[in-house]
Parts: sequence; C-alpha cells; structure tokens
Amino acid sequence: MRAARFYSKKDVRVEEIDIPELKENQVKIRVAWTGICGSDLHEYLAGPMTIPGDGPDPLTGQERPITMGHEYSGVVEEVGENVKDINVGDRVAVNPLITGGVADEGLVDMYQGFTFYGLGADGGFADYSIVEAKNVVKVGDTPLKLAATIEPVAVAVQAVRESEMKFGESVAIYGAGPIGLAQILAVKAAGAKDIFVFDLSGERLEIAKKIGATHAINSGETNPVEFIKQFYPFGVDRTFEVAGVPITLEQSIQSTRPRGKVTIVSIFEQPFEFNPMILTASGVNIASSLAYEDDIFEITQHLISTGQIDPGEIITGLIELEDIVDKGFEELSNNKSQAKILVKLSGED
Amino acid sequence: MRAARFYSKKDVRVEEIDIPELKENQVKIRVAWTGICGSDLHEYLAGPMTIPGDGPDPLTGQERPITMGHEYSGVVEEVGENVKDINVGDRVAVNPLITGGVADEGLVDMYQGFTFYGLGADGGFADYSIVEAKNVVKVGDTPLKLAATIEPVAVAVQAVRESEMKFGESVAIYGAGPIGLAQILAVKAAGAKDIFVFDLSGERLEIAKKIGATHAINSGETNPVEFIKQFYPFGVDRTFEVAGVPITLEQSIQSTRPRGKVTIVSIFEQPFEFNPMILTASGVNIASSLAYEDDIFEITQHLISTGQIDPGEIITGLIELEDIVDKGFEELSNNKSQAKILVKLSGED
Repeated sequence: MRAARFYSKKDVRVEEIDIPELKENQVKIRVAWTGICGSDLHEYLAGPMTIPGDGPDPLTGQERPITMGHEYSGVVEEVGENVKDINVGDRVAVNPLITGGVADEGLVDMYQGFTFYGLGADGGFADYSIVEAKNVVKVGDTPLKLAATIEPVAVAVQAVRESEMKFGESVAIYGAGPIGLAQILAVKAAGAKDIFVFDLSGERLEIAKKIGATHAINSGETNPVEFIKQFYPFGVDRTFEVAGVPITLEQSIQSTRPRGKVTIVSIFEQPFEFNPMILTASGVNIASSLAYEDDIFEITQHLISTGQIDPGEIITGLIELEDIVDKGFEELSNNKSQAKILVKLSGED
Repeated sequence: MRAARFYSKKDVRVEEIDIPELKENQVKIRVAWTGICGSDLHEYLAGPMTIPGDGPDPLTGQERPITMGHEYSGVVEEVGENVKDINVGDRVAVNPLITGGVADEGLVDMYQGFTFYGLGADGGFADYSIVEAKNVVKVGDTPLKLAATIEPVAVAVQAVRESEMKFGESVAIYGAGPIGLAQILAVKAAGAKDIFVFDLSGERLEIAKKIGATHAINSGETNPVEFIKQFYPFGVDRTFEVAGVPITLEQSIQSTRPRGKVTIVSIFEQPFEFNPMILTASGVNIASSLAYEDDIFEITQHLISTGQIDPGEIITGLIELEDIVDKGFEELSNNKSQAKILVKLSGED
C-alpha cells in the first residue's frame, strides 16, 4: 500500500510498504480522507518532536520512519478475532490518542504522557491503517470528509470544556488558523453570544465571518483590546488563545473580564517575559487545553453528525497523497489563506 | 493626636496632628490596635507605591504625608449626623478598601482601581481615625487585637474563594509569611485535608505547624515538588503561591494535579521568563487574588469571632506607636521569624 512516512525534518516520502499484520484486538481501516494538522507541519518543518527521535517511542515502541496522519476517517475492512461491536463495512473515524493508561481517569492519563497514531505510531496518510479497536469511533451517515475533521474540532470542543464557558457568554478568539476556526464552530455550538475573532489574514477572517464570528477583526490594523472594550468595557467572559505568541496572550488577558477565563489552546514554543501582576491586577483566570478526553471525541462526532457543528467551510483544499509535500506541507507553510487541507486516500464519501 | 505619617521612602514620622473634622456620613474611631502589613513595609522600603506619589490620590484626593495603617480595630467615639446603625461605644474593625464605585458589583470595582485607608487616605496608625460609615464593621465581643487581624486574614479567605477549593481537598502553600500563615488558617477553616507548607525560615515553619500545617517543610533543604509527589503522585488539588518569586510559581504549578488550581496571592514585582507550556503540559489552572470583597471581610469577622479561625498565634509582637520604625518596619525587614506585629494605640482589649 501507499504511505507517507516521516524520515526526518523536510524528508517525508510517499512509498510502497507492506500492510501490517492485523492483531486480535485491532481493526483494519480502508482510509478515506486524512487531514493535515498544524502539528504535522511542525514535524515536517522542525521535527522530529512528538515523532520519536532516536530509538523507539516510549509508549508504542515504534521507530522512524513513521506513517504520519492523525485526522482520518474510513471504512472498516477487517476486524481482529477479539473485536466485538465493530464490523466490516462500518464507517468510522479514528481517535488517535494513545496514553500509557497509568491512571484511572482518561483525564489524568493525558498529562502522564501520550502520543498519537500518526506521530508515535503509524497513522492515516496510507491506504490502510491498523489501530486498536478502542480507538475506533463509528460515524454513521456522516460524510467521511467531515468525519476526518472530528479530530481537530474535538480539540476546540475540549477547549470549551476547559474554559467552563456558559450558554450565552461572550467570547474572544485570538487566531483564525484551523484550530481558531474550529474554536468558532465549537463556541457557537455551545451557544456563545458575541464572538470576536482576531487574525492578520484577511482570507481567514472571511472564513471566520462566514462560520459565525460576529466581529472578525484584523489585529494588525485595529487594537483588539480597545475594540472589545467598546462593546464590553470590562472585557468578554471567555477568551481562547489560539495564536501562540506572547502579544496575543497579553491581549487575551486584557480582553477578559475579572473572573473570566483565558484558555490557552496553542502551543508556545519559547518562554518569554511575563509578569503575573497582569493576572493579579485583572482578576482573569488562565486555563489550558491539551488534546481531548474520550467522551469529547464522541461528543464532537455527534455534534458534527447532527449538523450542530458544520466544519465544511474550514476545508480549503483536497489533494492527492502523492502531492502531500508540495500541495500540503509546503502550501500550508506559505499560504496563510489555507485552513484545513484533506488528503484523499480511497476518497469515499 | 499622635499619627505615624509617610513622607517618603524610609521617612515615616510619628508626630502630633489635629484630629480631622467628622463629616455627616463618617465615624470617628478611637483606635485600639493596628497591624503592620507587608505592603506597609514595601512602602517604607521602596515607596511611594500605592501611597500617592506627586499630587493627590486619584480616588481620595489626599496627598502626602499620609497616616499609614490599614489593619485596625477600635471603639466608636462619635458618629456623623447621617449615620444609622453604628453607635458610640461600638467595638469595630475598619474595612479599609476604597473603590471608585464605577461598576455595579464590588467584585468588578476592585479591578477598576482601588486604594486603602492607610495608603491613599489617612489610616490607623493614629489615636483616632475618621472613616466612612460603610467601611466600619462591628466585631461584638471579639478581642480587639484579633479584630485588627481581620484585614490580613480576609486576604487569605478571599484567596480560598478564588481558588474554588472544596471541603476535604489537599492544599500546598508556598510561603509562610503573615499572609501564608493566614492562608493556613483559612484553608483549615474551609476543611482542607493535608496542608503542605514551604518556607525557608525554621521559625515560620514552627508557627505553620502549630496552626495547622500537616507538613511544614524547609524548601531550601527538601524539594517541595518531590515531597508532595510522595503523597500525591499527581499533585494536590489547590496550591497557594504566597512567596512571589519565579521558582515558587513554577513549583506551585508542578505541585498541583491536572485541573487543580494555583492561586497567586503574592505580588510579583518583576516580570520573568515563563513558558505557558508548563500549563499546557500539566493541565493546571491559574487564578489570582487581590484584596477582598465586602462580604468576605464580614465572613472573616464572623469566622474569627466564632473561633473557626484563631489568628492569635500569628501575632508575634506588640509595640508602641513611637517604636513603629525601629521595632516595626526595620524589625520586619531584618527578622524573618516575625509574622504579624501589632502597634498599640489605646490598647483596649
């Protein structure tokens, strides 16, 4: 079968490999569509990071080359002999989270070390993917292109949980990349009132407006904090930091009301100068969000299947597996108007 | 009357001044005891900070010299003609918080600018203090020495509210200065299970143990995070950062379980290198606490009057007003075994 495998930084190769053997608790999926994630891009540009460096991954034992891709959907081709409740022909998505299982709660597991199919183990940029049955989520009639977006949308849905946002609250979102856009969908599905979105890209702000931002503002031209305070003198209830730069964290805090909460969804790559007095003086709380809990993945599948969340508008490109480097990783690095690019495998609907 | 007035850094003078005129909504208090606060010490060593610099205070209009002291109790000597419900002879404490009253909620007020009697207006290091009736809280039979500690204990009680600590949770407290010690009293009164306290001073740790710390540990000798993880592998539920240095904020985060909360009670004077990934990787939330809401001051008065909180052990010195510089500010700067020093005015019990 074909597979896009990570060898090292800027060295991802589409090559023919054998289909791995199916074990008794596993499911073999004929992959339909697989999304390219920001973290795939990070691995391509600066990896290996989550992908194992020298030697095997501590959780999975797998070594490079690794088949990338962790946002994927497909159809069940074969099931291992111990697998119940999943049948050949089922339409499914993969919850790619792999934890060490060291604690009772999934919750705590995630913070005790985790990896993903597609980073620490072979994933979905391949014609077939073999995963543990517990990582398979049935998607019913949901179109398989949308099912491939459950994973990134689940990140945003988890962030709503961490934010403790309540129905009817006001929201600001810093950053309108793929996760920032998914964040708009998630807070709207949770009943947000005003949704202020800030980014530097006009194209992304256009999408933001189309999918639910009540105000989509270019933060290079308009000061976001001053803009929000025209409407909410004390700041909004919840802010999501999805840009990952020091200035947007500062602006996020300044945009939020006393006892409101800033939830950090992005990954900060560098430390920076920070004065906790900005918290003490404002009464703003900070939370963060990392991946998602199992139930959130299933909730997200449900929200997408009912249409409460429609991620169709954030899919800005469909490409062939052979083009994953040029029209995928390179295109996403250079063209900030791109949001979610899906790679076609079987291409089933 | 006598008053200890702040002129400038390291220039606090005890002098004779006229008793100010009583206005119609005000109360004149014969001061009994007034505590020295860490912020008084900051003003003495490095002020004016909250005390107005050049020109009048924006909220009160008062200029230097200012009579310091914001932790005080006394007996009502006279009331203005519009004052109801407060009578001559009432035993009282002063809630020194002065806000601009710009928002509906006291909550938000605090974050829109505030000062204190004793910093932005004349306070309690004087034989008499004249304050607005709404700042006066009756204390009933509570000994007036303890009533003078309502203010600093209220800071710790507010921090428990901000922490969202629940009955039976485990707690870590970094710093056993006066507020750190008050924090022990507050979390114990709220039903904390284990209370881990860290400081560098053996004397303070002795007091910590006496008033409720289940583990009082010298963090210069024992790594606090490793110590806690022996008992709570995933960390405690709530941590209070009452030391105000970068390393204790980092340790606070590392000591706390995923979805637990670190509440910053201290004032950080300088920015420092910080990487939000420490939050993302741990799932720890951050809150802060600033002063207290009106109801918290009254709740604290109640908790002290019933004995649920007994701040007697944190009073480590009683001094005369004339000695406020040498035996007060200088002593507190040089002797870390001191916690709360009360200045005697009338000295009534």
